Amino acid sequence: MKILIANVGSTSFKYKLLEMPEETTLAEGRIERIGDEEAPVEHRIGEQLFVKTCRMPDYPSAIKEVMTSLSDLITQPADLDAVGFKTVHLRGEPGTYLLNEDTLQRMADYNDLAPAHNPPYIQAIRIFHELYPDLPLIGLFETAFHTTIPDYAYTYGLPYEWQEQYGVRKYGFHGASHRYVSQRVPELIDTPVAGFKLVSCHLGGSASLCAIVDGCSIDTTMGFSAQDGLLNSTRNGSIDPFIIPFMMDRERFATSDIREILSKKSGLLGISGLSGDMRDLQEAAQKGHRRAKLAVDAFCYGVKTQIAAMAAAMGGVDAIAFAGGIGERGADVRMQVSKGLEFLGVCIDATLNQQGPPERVISLPDPPVDVVIVQTNEEIIVARETARFLQA
Amino acid sequence: MKILIANVGSTSFKYKLLEMPEETTLAEGRIERIGDEEAPVEHRIGEQLFVKTCRMPDYPSAIKEVMTSLSDLITQPADLDAVGFKTVHLRGEPGTYLLNEDTLQRMADYNDLAPAHNPPYIQAIRIFHELYPDLPLIGLFETAFHTTIPDYAYTYGLPYEWQEQYGVRKYGFHGASHRYVSQRVPELIDTPVAGFKLVSCHLGGSASLCAIVDGCSIDTTMGFSAQDGLLNSTRNGSIDPFIIPFMMDRERFATSDIREILSKKSGLLGISGLSGDMRDLQEAAQKGHRRAKLAVDAFCYGVKTQIAAMAAAMGGVDAIAFAGGIGERGADVRMQVSKGLEFLGVCIDATLNQQGPPERVISLPDPPVDVVIVQTNEEIIVARETARFLQA
Repeated sequence: MKILIANVGSTSFKYKLLEMPEETTLAEGRIERIGDEEAPVEHRIGEQLFVKTCRMPDYPSAIKEVMTSLSDLITQPADLDAVGFKTVHLRGEPGTYLLNEDTLQRMADYNDLAPAHNPPYIQAIRIFHELYPDLPLIGLFETAFHTTIPDYAYTYGLPYEWQEQYGVRKYGFHGASHRYVSQRVPELIDTPVAGFKLVSCHLGGSASLCAIVDGCSIDTTMGFSAQDGLLNSTRNGSIDPFIIPFMMDRERFATSDIREILSKKSGLLGISGLSGDMRDLQEAAQKGHRRAKLAVDAFCYGVKTQIAAMAAAMGGVDAIAFAGGIGERGADVRMQVSKGLEFLGVCIDATLNQQGPPERVISLPDPPVDVVIVQTNEEIIVARETARFLQA
Repeated sequence: MKILIANVGSTSFKYKLLEMPEETTLAEGRIERIGDEEAPVEHRIGEQLFVKTCRMPDYPSAIKEVMTSLSDLITQPADLDAVGFKTVHLRGEPGTYLLNEDTLQRMADYNDLAPAHNPPYIQAIRIFHELYPDLPLIGLFETAFHTTIPDYAYTYGLPYEWQEQYGVRKYGFHGASHRYVSQRVPELIDTPVAGFKLVSCHLGGSASLCAIVDGCSIDTTMGFSAQDGLLNSTRNGSIDPFIIPFMMDRERFATSDIREILSKKSGLLGISGLSGDMRDLQEAAQKGHRRAKLAVDAFCYGVKTQIAAMAAAMGGVDAIAFAGGIGERGADVRMQVSKGLEFLGVCIDATLNQQGPPERVISLPDPPVDVVIVQTNEEIIVARETARFLQA
């Protein structure tokens, strides 16, 4: 079974073609700067790498470019069994869905909650529909892994009617990554999933924690949207809600202005005034940039305190996993987060933290809490769920 | 030195007259339903109790009523050294302030952040000024105890200019209560303050936690306003900030509508649809009211997970204190909060939790973490700070 996994950005398209259930990567690639005269294009088909720059006026051209590049593997549309999308948010019950008109409408209903993701996904899905009307398009929503969170953890202290009428509750995101981590960590430390209490730390430009018991999410730091919890690159983390009407009154902001500022000018970038990239901030902080250091410290402090909150949600913690760009490569962040968590039994080995294979245990020997670095693989989760959906 | 402590509500006035530094209560009382034809009035002067119902058209009448009732103790205005107010919020640096025009203006600047408290306090203070122009009026702001919180804990992931220009940062509240608890717990369990790590849980109609090291606040769950952190009676706790523009767009709410709903129709009341009072909710939950149970569970879950977050802020925890109406009298809440915190060393004795003197240790003997009930005394903190301010 051949499944194409499509990762859609506002001006980019990344893909991976997988043979399932073998999980073999047949091809992968990316097109960036869609809409530009000079769009960089990269395809790896089997062992062969193709790199070029060409005019890529729009999304249909990009999708055609990808399908043409795959023509040796997919000689006719029927050779492809489905396209799987790591879709983000939709009104109603999260899950894995056939991306038909109804699903697309429910995604559109929540466009304002995922302004950077839902609109480009809807656009790309519509183009696939037009080009290949018989091809099943499947969406694994990022919220789906969190459907096991209990009501007392997902209900906000707001008029309950808002939940009933508009779905205002905690959903959580990064579901594909947290699900992968939930399966990978027990393998890495050779422990059964049953009863296992794990805090998964997906730390990247977008960051969230997840409390996972028996392989199921029971709480997470993101909420109704991806704008809650930890600091992100340019998105705020937890803030006092009264800040919003306060600033709207002071600066005459419209709701669209607030959304724009909280999405694009906040988080690490907002605090530092310099960059939303952790590496830039660490470099600047070392050179004495006060607000860059403040952004790094605030980020690590949020991760640290919320790891403890996630542990309390589970009644204890057996392991902590770091994944995502910062989680996998940010040795200094991992060390700063862990300092002060010794009371939970978290003790990192400084040498193992600094170097070793990409996936490794970095806690001291026989630790009360295992600390593990995981190379997350969201595509494989989407492919597995897509295959499972097709078979069901 | 005679200090009158004034506790101002929107239609109520409570007071306590203290001899300082002896901390002797000379008189105390309350007037409720100011503005009504039949306002209940209660004065306890020394050992004598006076109770009556009378017409109390406005705040000046109420203040005159109190001063008349105290005329045996304060025969002339100069006998009273100061009035101390447990004021809530002002623009600029928190602290203890002489309540002059400048301070009142700074309070008014933050009226929209403390809509239930700042306006009536400002009104009452102005009336005292008019009636007794030479009497020093001193405000201990509820934010003052939290000035030791480090920048990485009080800075939000928002444009930094909002902090510089408008003071948008975490402040924290319930400062008088948390300060009292920080001093009282070391006395109760006979331990030095130096190095002592305490989570103070002020749980009432308004609720917050505070992480206290060496007697100093280093983090707290409330933020820029009292609308963040734990669930309150009718005020929301932590919510995803994108909920606000989402609901404003769906329901065409103005910022004033949002403030009204989040202040008065949210929290325990919002979830349950029944009541903002924990006792009502526990009773209804026992009778099978699903949303009453959900509100209780969500409240306890928030307290539990945030106790752990506060512990992480301190790198561990030596003691947990419960104070406030729910904290002092809510045995079931204390038990529900503690269940699942055994991994932190929190173990409550079920019998001690149920009964005993108002202030008591309720943890099992020789516990890793002492758990203590404290009868908080905010008035004495305001009186001490007022006396200190006068002497400085």
